[in-house]
Parts: sequence; structure tokens; C-alpha cells
Amino acid sequence: MLIVKAGGGLSISMEFVADDLAQAVAQGEQLVFVHGAAEHTNAVSEALGHPPEFVEGRNGLTSRRTDRRTLEIFLMVYCGQINKLWVEALQKRGVNAVGLSGLDGRLVRGTRKSRIRVRKGNRWVMIRDDWTGTVDHVDTRLIRLLLDEGYVPVLTPPALSHDNEAINVDGDRIAAHMAVSLQADTLLYLSDVAGLLQSYPDESTLISSIKPNQIDRFINLAEGRMKRKVMGAKDALQQGVGEVVIADGRVEDPVTKALDQAHGTHIG
Amino acid sequence: MLIVKAGGGLSISMEFVADDLAQAVAQGEQLVFVHGAAEHTNAVSEALGHPPEFVEGRNGLTSRRTDRRTLEIFLMVYCGQINKLWVEALQKRGVNAVGLSGLDGRLVRGTRKSRIRVRKGNRWVMIRDDWTGTVDHVDTRLIRLLLDEGYVPVLTPPALSHDNEAINVDGDRIAAHMAVSLQADTLLYLSDVAGLLQSYPDESTLISSIKPNQIDRFINLAEGRMKRKVMGAKDALQQGVGEVVIADGRVEDPVTKALDQAHGTHIG
Repeated sequence: MLIVKAGGGLSISMEFVADDLAQAVAQGEQLVFVHGAAEHTNAVSEALGHPPEFVEGRNGLTSRRTDRRTLEIFLMVYCGQINKLWVEALQKRGVNAVGLSGLDGRLVRGTRKSRIRVRKGNRWVMIRDDWTGTVDHVDTRLIRLLLDEGYVPVLTPPALSHDNEAINVDGDRIAAHMAVSLQADTLLYLSDVAGLLQSYPDESTLISSIKPNQIDRFINLAEGRMKRKVMGAKDALQQGVGEVVIADGRVEDPVTKALDQAHGTHIG
Repeated sequence: MLIVKAGGGLSISMEFVADDLAQAVAQGEQLVFVHGAAEHTNAVSEALGHPPEFVEGRNGLTSRRTDRRTLEIFLMVYCGQINKLWVEALQKRGVNAVGLSGLDGRLVRGTRKSRIRVRKGNRWVMIRDDWTGTVDHVDTRLIRLLLDEGYVPVLTPPALSHDNEAINVDGDRIAAHMAVSLQADTLLYLSDVAGLLQSYPDESTLISSIKPNQIDRFINLAEGRMKRKVMGAKDALQQGVGEVVIADGRVEDPVTKALDQAHGTHIG
């Protein structure tokens, strides 16, 4: 069982990724694919006159300020444009993909942070109409039903809150929860960098391997979204996932290369 | 088995429709829900600086001019914004909805009209980069799988062409094919009129009942989208659907009222 998450960077190649996923499926690999759409969402938000805003929370991590209008744009881009373009790309290559969000079949449950404290300059302000949240649980019933019938699930945020409302959650966390729930052999993150770098953005400083007992040291090295991935990797490995790989989604054969020890950062 | 199609008019009430669908499901009705998003798509197309254009084909019917950019906007609005707002509205009411397009699991197959002849003023011109098509076939395997497990499918165009590309097809036709494939008792169209009117838009001229042998006469009476619905009704009844109802989607309890003989146009 292979879980692949492709990030939402514009430089990630849908063609290369879809080609390689189709090859993995043709070789009999059971696959669940998760994708983001962050940079596409930024572009559509700008075009619709509701430009993206990012806020820094108490944990030091930034997240997209998600008022209800932003949430609707998020639905448009993640669940509409990008999810269905991935499904179309996979169908063109013979993969019987089924695109789903975390809302569908209550696949991904999360807790809405109805009040968030964010930094504005050098003070902290409270925001009350935000629709972001954390991933609590992935229900694999629908996923297993689809896999058993030969379909390939293609998942995207948002999640469904405990009040049954759509919430903006981190796609990397969905992938990690999915990998744990399905006890996947490999959780592969394809992003717009070569892997975890000792000295970002110098790709010659790629860290090719991290043992489980070294992870904490590397979490401090990582920044931004990469920090979330390494934190997620630690959780996933502790809960039974075989290996977590962070690799380049911009190159030809990105999956094949990532599963080869010579590419990306292998954790586990 | 009940198939409900809600049109894509802005005056159709998502709240009223979702309330009533949830009640039908709670009473044990097996439901497949299909929706459109035409007017929402027009609004987003305008906002994105790619205004909608409608063309008249050789059959006298108009359709959305769908270049590849329009198709991406179509995916955004139909499959993203509106499909997931319906799923969220149903989940809020306890219905375990699963939103799908015709691409997902190859649910709806269609034939792309790669060349269409359209009227420009008083002459006919050929368009070659259009992404519209006809609905050929609905595969109910995934739908039955979901229904058997207690999920409620929420379907939307586009369809998947025989070359595995997304194509803009008529949601009313998807609903009619679905009703035939599942041999539904009732196919219900909720739109922004009270039903088929003898003298549009005078709602006091509602035609409340049409017997199968009268349909051809009424097809000529109907115009535009209503003509397509009546044509679809004829096909559906000939192929085993119990009854087709065209009723008002703007009112409270629209499903309950439509299933009552005192509301809408009942065909069959």
C-alpha cells in the first residue's frame, strides 16, 4: 500500500506524477493519492478580488486566513479544478480514479478552530470567523470499499468538522492519517524541493536518510511546510507506517525515483 | 428509488431542498441527487474575466460555448463550489452524502462534439476547440456500491469522453440516464419555475398532468431547457421509469410537494 501526497506548488508536474502513478497502479500497487492546491488557490483568489492572506499562529506555523468567502474559493480550486484535473489526468492513463474531499462520506473529520490568535505586527489578535482546523480522524471505510473494487481514491482537503461544516485542513496531515489508518508501507510526499535540505535552498545539501531516533534533531532544521512534513513523518512511523519519503515532484518518474534510495529524503 | 435533479438557477433554495431530501432519506427512501450550477458558473466566469457565451446549434437548442478555459471554470464551480456546498448542506442534516462528477469512476460516459456548427448572426460557423458533448451511458456500479453502504450519491457534470477527457454535458440528461439505469420509481426535476406552463411565464397556466401519449404535443409547447426536460421525460418513461415530475425548487418542502399530485407537472 502506497500513499502519495503531491503538494500544491505550481512547479509540480501533473503530467510526470500522473504518468508514474499510472505505472505503479499497472504494476499492481494499491494506491491512495492525496493532493493540495495552495498556489492555484492563491491565483484564483487574486483573480476573484479576494487576495490570499496568511497568518502566523501561536505554534509559529503560518496558515491561510479562511473566512467563508475564502472557504468557497478553496472548495472551487481544491475540490473542483485541481481534484478533477488530477482525476482526468489519471483516467487518460487508464487509472479508474475517484476524486473525493474530506467532506464526502465523512472521510476526514477535523476540529474547527473557531477562535484563532494570530500575530498582527508585534501584537496578537483574536479572529472568530475562521474556517481552519486540525485533522482528527480518517475513516477508511469508503477508501477500502473503493480499493477493493479497483478504484484509485484521489483525496483533497477540506475536512468535515464535528458540526458538519467544511474546514480548511492541512493535506499533508490527511495523507499521514491515511497512511496510519491503512498501515501503508510507504508515505511519499512529492513537493517542489528535492527533499529536506541541510541548508535551504541549496539542493546539494540534501539529507538522504534520517533514522527514527534522529528525527527530533531534523525537525528543528526544517522550516514552514517542511517542518510539518517531518513532524508528520515522526507520528506516522511511530504508528506503524513503514517509511516516509520526501522527494521532488518536478521531475520525470518522481515516484519511481523517490522509491529508489538514491533520491529524496528517506525517513524510517 | 428516487432521482432528484436540482437545476443551477440562483433562485433554487439549497436550504429548502436539502431539508426535504434529508427528510426523504430519513424515511428510508433510496436517493440519488444530481445538481447543476449554470448560473453560478456564469457569475464566476464574469468575475474571472472570461464571460459566458451561449451558442445555438443545428438542433435549435443553445449550449454553453466551452473552450478549455471555460471547462476549467466549469470544473471549479460544478464539482468544487456547488457540489461540495450540497454535500456540506446534506451532511449538516445527517445525510452521508458523497459528491462525485461524471469523471469519477467513469460514472458518466459521453461523446465529445469536437466540431460544432453554431449560428453567428445569420450564418453558420464551425467551432473546433469545444468541450461539450452528449451523455451516452451511466455506469451504476459505483452508485450501487455507495447506496448499498448507506451513502447518498450527489452527482454533477462533467462527463468523461471516450478519449477520457472532461466534457460539458447536460445534467438533466445525466439524471434521466441514471433514472433509467436504476429503474427509478420517480425522476424529479426541481427548477426555477412551477412546472411546464401553457403560457410561459404565467404560472396560473401550469399543466399539472401529461399522459404518455400526449408528450409529443407538449414538447412543441416547451422551450429551451424545459424542452430538454420534456424530451428526457419521454425517453425515461419509455425505458421503464415510473413517473417524471417537473416542479418548483424555490419553495419550502419542494420534494414533498412535488411528489404530491397537487404540485408541478406530472408526466407518466
